[in-house]
Amino acid sequence: MTIRSFNPPVRTLMGPGPADVHPRVLAALARPTIGHLDPAFVGMMDEVKDLLRTAFRTRNALTMPVSAPGSAGMETCFVNLVEPGDEVVVCINGVFGGRMKENVERAGGVPIVVQGTWGRAVDPDQVADTLKRHPNARLLAFVQAETSTGAQSDARALAEIARRHDCLTIVDAVTALGGSPLEVDAWGLDAVYAGSQKCLSCVPGLAPVTFNERALEKVRARKTRVRSWFLDLNLVMGYWSGEQKRSYHHTAPVNALYALHEALVMLAEEGVEAAWKRHAHHHLALRAGLETLGLELIVPEAERLPQLNSVAVPAGIDEAALRARLLSRYNLELGAGLGDLAGKVWRIGLMGYSSRPANILLCLGAMASELDAVGYRADAGAAIAAARAVLDQAD
Amino acid sequence: MTIRSFNPPVRTLMGPGPADVHPRVLAALARPTIGHLDPAFVGMMDEVKDLLRTAFRTRNALTMPVSAPGSAGMETCFVNLVEPGDEVVVCINGVFGGRMKENVERAGGVPIVVQGTWGRAVDPDQVADTLKRHPNARLLAFVQAETSTGAQSDARALAEIARRHDCLTIVDAVTALGGSPLEVDAWGLDAVYAGSQKCLSCVPGLAPVTFNERALEKVRARKTRVRSWFLDLNLVMGYWSGEQKRSYHHTAPVNALYALHEALVMLAEEGVEAAWKRHAHHHLALRAGLETLGLELIVPEAERLPQLNSVAVPAGIDEAALRARLLSRYNLELGAGLGDLAGKVWRIGLMGYSSRPANILLCLGAMASELDAVGYRADAGAAIAAARAVLDQAD
Repeated sequence: MTIRSFNPPVRTLMGPGPADVHPRVLAALARPTIGHLDPAFVGMMDEVKDLLRTAFRTRNALTMPVSAPGSAGMETCFVNLVEPGDEVVVCINGVFGGRMKENVERAGGVPIVVQGTWGRAVDPDQVADTLKRHPNARLLAFVQAETSTGAQSDARALAEIARRHDCLTIVDAVTALGGSPLEVDAWGLDAVYAGSQKCLSCVPGLAPVTFNERALEKVRARKTRVRSWFLDLNLVMGYWSGEQKRSYHHTAPVNALYALHEALVMLAEEGVEAAWKRHAHHHLALRAGLETLGLELIVPEAERLPQLNSVAVPAGIDEAALRARLLSRYNLELGAGLGDLAGKVWRIGLMGYSSRPANILLCLGAMASELDAVGYRADAGAAIAAARAVLDQAD
Repeated sequence: MTIRSFNPPVRTLMGPGPADVHPRVLAALARPTIGHLDPAFVGMMDEVKDLLRTAFRTRNALTMPVSAPGSAGMETCFVNLVEPGDEVVVCINGVFGGRMKENVERAGGVPIVVQGTWGRAVDPDQVADTLKRHPNARLLAFVQAETSTGAQSDARALAEIARRHDCLTIVDAVTALGGSPLEVDAWGLDAVYAGSQKCLSCVPGLAPVTFNERALEKVRARKTRVRSWFLDLNLVMGYWSGEQKRSYHHTAPVNALYALHEALVMLAEEGVEAAWKRHAHHHLALRAGLETLGLELIVPEAERLPQLNSVAVPAGIDEAALRARLLSRYNLELGAGLGDLAGKVWRIGLMGYSSRPANILLCLGAMASELDAVGYRADAGAAIAAARAVLDQAD
């Protein structure tokens, strides 16, 4: 069988990511490829670093995108900061906390787990208590924005506790960056990783990271070599350093970086705080509509990520069938539950370019009408009116 | 200072990669992003695997692109196949052999180096001798296509020697895939990695790999866990497996995979052997022109990669200044020397879409005229005529 060119369907992406990629970003992506050592490219890399600092709210010199997906951003943090035998306190309140534990083990470290509840924030008291009981731990790892549940943890409070116990923090902000408050410097976060395909409205494949001086000190003071050559910051830093002659490390994903650059330019144009506000506002509109439909968000409002809404599947509804129906009829993608929440929730993302009024209305209208068709009484008009009332409120 | 959208210059890429990306591939890259668990995307992944098998000349079930650059493809091979304490024979005849050694060490293995000569093929006798002296080694690693020098090693012969000594092979074919003979099954290569941005004319950022059953047996029989979570084939296989329900591992770089798919469709349309022939033919045309200019290729013809030509810089010529001039005046990128060859050679790539008559003429004309301008007597017309005579020969 001859395989032909692939023409994807045109979807509206309201799952946990990738989010809708803005046409400006797709246009940037397709610009002509240049060499990764081209002076023009090197200049663009410096701009990407500056733009990422704006997004992360940091002045950290080491702020750059890892040339691989968010999972590799996670691994970059752990493989560089953990040495064999190191005790690392890891908070688990969803899938990605579990991965952190895996990462600690692969790096030769000893994970000490703070077991939290799926769909809830990490409990700072529990963390403080664990750190007290493990005085040798020098690292605290937690997920600020748990993509598997939509729970948001208090990164500022957790970082403060970590500092009191002389620990560095490793923070997963994959779903947070560009969508909800994240203050790397003001909160004193030490090593943070994110993803390109969530609230930055960029294509998947890059993992912005930022390390402060305290974290880099620890990397420089290692007694053993980093277990990954590809992710060894001692090498990657030479490649991304603007100060000196750039040393060849790997071939950067040139076009993906064009896209990230454009996405970050757009974020800077909107303003980081304005983007946070937009996500929060649109969350409230979606929530008003969902509640009108009698649907329940599983995360308590105070611990909820505005950009990722986990909605309990009503009793008797086949969650996968409904998602399939939305996809085939409306080209609308919602996310399924992961891990403990598989089959129990839909995850509705309002991230980046996906966070816009048209998407809110499409989602509410489509969900209401398809739920109604399978016997769950839902009034699309009422849901849309409720969302509209929130959208009407001046911000 | 406000950072604006980045508009790259339009270059002709005749360095060691990235090569010119075909407009069809750039167009595919910019198609609308869909979810990485979308049924349409999963179908495309299966096609990518099939197309890669065609390119690699293999029936290996585990044939897929790693979601990161070629360096991560290298690391995928080593981190999965090497366990702490394992002796690994590594052939070094350029930069990338050196990296293999690094990879062995990071994976906890013990490298046994076969030191070769920069710009020459790996010596099979030397390898056989080393394997004899190290009967505990179970892995032989070598670079088939040394991108730093343009030397091609005899992968078939080396794999045969490895089998005689009960060793598996890890083969770097980054620059070979799609450009010069590579027969994974016929030659019995066990684990092979490549890159997207060389002879496939795709954007950088993906690393096709293929593992045969012997290699997978070794991965499955590991006594220790793979040191990388991101690159652990036990997990990645679940993600790329078409047979069963696809398990979530990481978010695939969706758009980059559109591009790879299109590049591989184009390779299949041309035919893999026809592509090898084209690269060989264009090499001869370029060589004829370069020799007419009195320039010397540093690798002996029998050991030369047709798609990557290392040319000795004539005495008295400032190699960097000439490259800078070609870039600024003609938007033409040639490669510099790396490692031992830094400052001593230009690397001229004729890879993928860059391997076309127009590029040969541009390169010869531009080099001749700019060399002439700095006092090296060079006749552009004669060089072009010599190349043209080769192009005229029916293939």
